[in-house]
Amino acid sequence: MSAVRFSPPYFVGIDLGGTNIKSGVVDNDGRPMSSVSIETHAGMGPETGLDNLVAAANQAVTKSGLYWDRIAAVGLGSPGTMDLEAGMLLDPPNLPGWDNFPIRQRLADRVKKPVTFQNDANAASYGEFWVGAAKDDRSLVMFTLGTGIGCGIVVDGMIIAGRHSHGAECGHIIIEMENGRQCSCGAYGHLEGYASATALVKRAHEALESEKNPSLLRSLKNDELTSRAISEAADAGDPLARRLMRETARYLAVGAVSLMHTIDPDIVLFGGGMIAAGLPFLEDIRTDIRAMAFPVPAAKTRVEYAQLGGDAGFIGSAGCARMAFHRHSS
Amino acid sequence: MSAVRFSPPYFVGIDLGGTNIKSGVVDNDGRPMSSVSIETHAGMGPETGLDNLVAAANQAVTKSGLYWDRIAAVGLGSPGTMDLEAGMLLDPPNLPGWDNFPIRQRLADRVKKPVTFQNDANAASYGEFWVGAAKDDRSLVMFTLGTGIGCGIVVDGMIIAGRHSHGAECGHIIIEMENGRQCSCGAYGHLEGYASATALVKRAHEALESEKNPSLLRSLKNDELTSRAISEAADAGDPLARRLMRETARYLAVGAVSLMHTIDPDIVLFGGGMIAAGLPFLEDIRTDIRAMAFPVPAAKTRVEYAQLGGDAGFIGSAGCARMAFHRHSS
Repeated sequence: MSAVRFSPPYFVGIDLGGTNIKSGVVDNDGRPMSSVSIETHAGMGPETGLDNLVAAANQAVTKSGLYWDRIAAVGLGSPGTMDLEAGMLLDPPNLPGWDNFPIRQRLADRVKKPVTFQNDANAASYGEFWVGAAKDDRSLVMFTLGTGIGCGIVVDGMIIAGRHSHGAECGHIIIEMENGRQCSCGAYGHLEGYASATALVKRAHEALESEKNPSLLRSLKNDELTSRAISEAADAGDPLARRLMRETARYLAVGAVSLMHTIDPDIVLFGGGMIAAGLPFLEDIRTDIRAMAFPVPAAKTRVEYAQLGGDAGFIGSAGCARMAFHRHSS
Repeated sequence: MSAVRFSPPYFVGIDLGGTNIKSGVVDNDGRPMSSVSIETHAGMGPETGLDNLVAAANQAVTKSGLYWDRIAAVGLGSPGTMDLEAGMLLDPPNLPGWDNFPIRQRLADRVKKPVTFQNDANAASYGEFWVGAAKDDRSLVMFTLGTGIGCGIVVDGMIIAGRHSHGAECGHIIIEMENGRQCSCGAYGHLEGYASATALVKRAHEALESEKNPSLLRSLKNDELTSRAISEAADAGDPLARRLMRETARYLAVGAVSLMHTIDPDIVLFGGGMIAAGLPFLEDIRTDIRAMAFPVPAAKTRVEYAQLGGDAGFIGSAGCARMAFHRHSS
């Protein structure tokens, strides 16, 4: 019975996106104590953006009922491109004008706490590893399905961030080397060029133009033809929409199998907006993975949806801050 | 100045193959003190095979001039399939009849030393990481080009062995999902089905049958049409052979780029028999990698040939034994 009062550390996680900044205070066991979301106003440049990062963190701390003196460290997740070791943004397409911005140090100067810096998809996957769908696992591969395809890999608690901050850019593995589709990055044959929400919508437009069969999708205006609308039309029994979703599942299975034959994780997770398609979509992915993977991983690797939703980014970023804090204080 | 005499540990590495067993004693700094090679006689089954493993290790120790009491541990590398945690061979195609053989424990019982067990391609890559072409690096991806395509991945000193002993089976990533070639494993579109020595020879046969152009390769008897012969004909200026080698380089670059966008290592290595094709082949691989990878890894990731040749397996296996020894004794 010690007389010293144990004061557990708390962490602020920040998930910087091109549109919104999400932030929350997370306790040492990964429980979010608060969460807030404000607009990034990315187009106003990095100095305004930095003000907004600080504002989001301050709001998260206030909303948690804690004071900054209980916060041990801050974790920031951000879209790339980036130099993680240097704590720099390099040339981030979603943050125009933030080039070569030393974001980690600038944020640390403002909040006067140690700041860790991680790729947003890596941070989200670490959130799922820490307290989400993979919390009882030792390793995971996670695909985040949205406008693009993000990816994160954790092996024995270590994020595969890469030597040049390009680890787990698995939206950009090559799944079709001959005559592959063009990816949003400009290259050809990448997974993202087939299976992102953007690619799904593009494939729908192509099918509607080149085919004459009836489809619910034909009644949609251009801006209504979203991945969500395609998924809903598939649920309503529309054959074209079903085929498009089925193909998407197969493309994702191809990517997942290549990762299972590379990382061989306990679990493969899918997160992001597209998992609103629900369990039939997941079951299609599983079916195709089982058909293509080697027998042992096909039988044993779990394939699931992520559980933390839009909170994975700030929770995982807080987890990265916690990991660095405990490493330095042990 | 201590009076205690420092007695550094030595390690026996064993590289078990379908045809030969290579073994050597390796010192704590990765220098081989001896090496021997004997026939596996795999077809005589695992009990005879075990006798041969012990014989190879004994010969290696004798040839090193040391005694077994100076050997701290033994490392075994073996082809799969395997269960690394259980120390079991499962259903190894190259070791017919060795199914479900508890090889790690059986070998430990015989040599009366701790034995580590690793996939042969992983062990070879660890050898290159420890004292070979990647000895100054923190991470590597290595492809071993032979009858099949082996692969090993090391990140921050940790071998990516996988949760189900299927880590770094990157010969079996999918590079062509639509109408891909059949791989030796039976599945379609795998890297190995395009770029192994076996696949190169198969592609040569197909080209000779379907095309009418003259080629040095037409003068070869069936059993003379090897990957080595194709590489030599390419060196001699034969257009078909050149095209076949050039395509092989591109296939390997596709695989390497997917790994660079997944692991993002310091260095990508190519080893195995096919690197006898020499520097022009490596330069072709580099050219295609630079054309396909993201700008930062394209510019910074080194792409080289392995340096340890056929010794990588036993040196790396000894390195695995050393890693476990120092972990347990620290």
